[in-house]
Amino acid sequence: MQTFFKVKTAQEVFESLGDIEPLGSESIPLRSSLGRVLARDIESGEDLPGFHRSTVDGYALAARDTYGASESLPALLTVAGEVGMGTMHQFVLKRGQCALIPTGGMLPEGADAVAMVEYSQTLEEGLVEVTRPVSPLENVIQPDDDVKKGQVMLKRGTLLRPQDLGILAGLGVAQVEVFARARAAIISTGEEVVDISQKPRLGQIRDINSFTLHGLCEKAGAEPIYLGIVGDTFQDLKSATEKGLSQSDVVLLSGGSSVGAKDLTLEAFSSFDGVELIAHGVSISPGKPTIVARKGNKTLWGLPGHPVSTMIIFDVFLTFLFGKLSGLGEPAQGMDYYIEAELDRNVESVTGREDYIRVKLSHGEGRVIATPIFGKSGLISTMIEADGLVRIDMNTEGLYRGDTVRVKVFRS
Amino acid sequence: MQTFFKVKTAQEVFESLGDIEPLGSESIPLRSSLGRVLARDIESGEDLPGFHRSTVDGYALAARDTYGASESLPALLTVAGEVGMGTMHQFVLKRGQCALIPTGGMLPEGADAVAMVEYSQTLEEGLVEVTRPVSPLENVIQPDDDVKKGQVMLKRGTLLRPQDLGILAGLGVAQVEVFARARAAIISTGEEVVDISQKPRLGQIRDINSFTLHGLCEKAGAEPIYLGIVGDTFQDLKSATEKGLSQSDVVLLSGGSSVGAKDLTLEAFSSFDGVELIAHGVSISPGKPTIVARKGNKTLWGLPGHPVSTMIIFDVFLTFLFGKLSGLGEPAQGMDYYIEAELDRNVESVTGREDYIRVKLSHGEGRVIATPIFGKSGLISTMIEADGLVRIDMNTEGLYRGDTVRVKVFRS
Repeated sequence: MQTFFKVKTAQEVFESLGDIEPLGSESIPLRSSLGRVLARDIESGEDLPGFHRSTVDGYALAARDTYGASESLPALLTVAGEVGMGTMHQFVLKRGQCALIPTGGMLPEGADAVAMVEYSQTLEEGLVEVTRPVSPLENVIQPDDDVKKGQVMLKRGTLLRPQDLGILAGLGVAQVEVFARARAAIISTGEEVVDISQKPRLGQIRDINSFTLHGLCEKAGAEPIYLGIVGDTFQDLKSATEKGLSQSDVVLLSGGSSVGAKDLTLEAFSSFDGVELIAHGVSISPGKPTIVARKGNKTLWGLPGHPVSTMIIFDVFLTFLFGKLSGLGEPAQGMDYYIEAELDRNVESVTGREDYIRVKLSHGEGRVIATPIFGKSGLISTMIEADGLVRIDMNTEGLYRGDTVRVKVFRS
Repeated sequence: MQTFFKVKTAQEVFESLGDIEPLGSESIPLRSSLGRVLARDIESGEDLPGFHRSTVDGYALAARDTYGASESLPALLTVAGEVGMGTMHQFVLKRGQCALIPTGGMLPEGADAVAMVEYSQTLEEGLVEVTRPVSPLENVIQPDDDVKKGQVMLKRGTLLRPQDLGILAGLGVAQVEVFARARAAIISTGEEVVDISQKPRLGQIRDINSFTLHGLCEKAGAEPIYLGIVGDTFQDLKSATEKGLSQSDVVLLSGGSSVGAKDLTLEAFSSFDGVELIAHGVSISPGKPTIVARKGNKTLWGLPGHPVSTMIIFDVFLTFLFGKLSGLGEPAQGMDYYIEAELDRNVESVTGREDYIRVKLSHGEGRVIATPIFGKSGLISTMIEADGLVRIDMNTEGLYRGDTVRVKVFRS
């Protein structure tokens, strides 16, 4: 058995992946673009809404005609007409005139404000009293209030949210240029691993990792491609890796954590021209027996066999990698992934490696409590119980009860 | 013009929706189940892993054979064989014997622990020294450590995460029973609204809301069905609503905020047998001009025309509603949606209504800062700039600079 000879820190692995390039772009319908990443800046070709728009139901008028108006001395205006929705005004307001206008309607020429219907009173057909003064532009959206022509509204690298779809619709962008989704080949290895449709014999287990990896890839915006279960022989591993390299951008091979199995994976990876080994072991616990290799812009991962370790390694490196491949501006930097909580137990750690602690969250008095879940990394059930992960820094010996920690919360 | 006559608080609306029933269930392949909600408890039919499993590379042995072992006085054992992965043991260990075992291998009969290879030394072929004592069960996962037979592993109402897919795979659940996805009919109304493929004339705007609603529905796990843009006439609104009711569980009609438009929506909704009006106006700002009606387990929503208001009303009510329809255990209670931040400006509010403030987040010294974004609810651009929302309670007059607030963070 060969021991790990190229153990790297997380930082070193990130550096080796720093120049991974985003994939090419594609044009897709706006309606399918939620969660995709913009491949170019979106500059507005026009002002929005493009006209003076009322924000209330009321009377469009010249503000100066209402100056000094009050309950006891209302301004008296004649109603010149009614503004229809979506139509250009057919009239021009003269001094002392106003026009009935609905919310969203376009102000007629001669009007610079809208008096709310609540502060008006109809005296007789065509005559209205306004009981409060309005200022110019009161209750009005100006032509370029929402969007100014030539303004960059959304930047290349933006992960599209519902409101981003909204502004793209407003600008008439029916087809969006987004980065292609990364494809991830998922291969399970191990003589003891059987398909989930099979009843395992003693000593065998069903293929758990390919399903957690499938879910993790989908969450990360990548397209998972399942290539099945292969045995722990050099030839099987090599041909599965070859298939993975030809069909995907990232090859995820999850398998036995034994040194023998890892050595075979390393051999299989190294058998391809142009493959460069990045790490043979990472200083992360759980997750140490991880192999990282690279062939140009493609990467190959020999993930630990233990389900918890595999999930943590994915969380640390692959969310970041898929972010880079999909052109995300700040991969995995989103603040929404974290919440602060108070640790309710001491946790030991070893300096010189990053430790990831599974925690369960609960509500304490005015704060969130994080309770560590201890358990071997082979037990997927500990990840079911957990709500998230806490990272313990390489240079920290542990955390204390009462410490405030940042919890990276699991999401579906 | 008719004013709102049935303005309800958010609490009252929630109460009227309290007895909404989850939709029926369907059986889907495990690989497609991420983000879906379990329709029944998953009870384990077996122990996992089902056998004594080594967590390290080393020697399987009887712990008592190593008691008292040290560097200077190692325990001497004979190697009876090597455990293969995924195979049942072909040998039984006798006193003083051990077997080479890889990580994940099954312990042979007669062994109750594993000594790590790091603490052993091969003397000659078939003879090994162990230099540290091991305890019974050290480096071993017991047959029911991960899952006990008969244990409920996942409860009905669980939103499936990657690790949940993993445990279901481990249990051999290839098809999962989940609640059906809710279908949401999206209808845009308003004479001024044009399709995004069209160039708006003066006074017209492109259909923004149907795209933000599309994205919001997808995020909430619902299937959006777009029924197009209809005019603000009773007959158009009625037939669009009819189509929506026949094809979906939730009808989302977004349109003009004018009282006239709202009255027509109300008339259209009320024209169907069995429709009960829940609210004609809600005490939420922005978002007041909202109509909520119900026909059995189906609901009809007349959403405000302003994009910001529509998004906030969706966030408050529809995330909750889709959670109920999809059978989610605790709809919209997930702690992951919030982060705590310090407000950097005073914000006024009006008692008697809930106010929602758009905020931008940034990192201050050791804390997250929330900066309010002020702007009319007709401006979708304010939602692009914002990172999330802060709710101001009905009974609060405002918030102060320096207050700690909970920010509901937008996600894609």
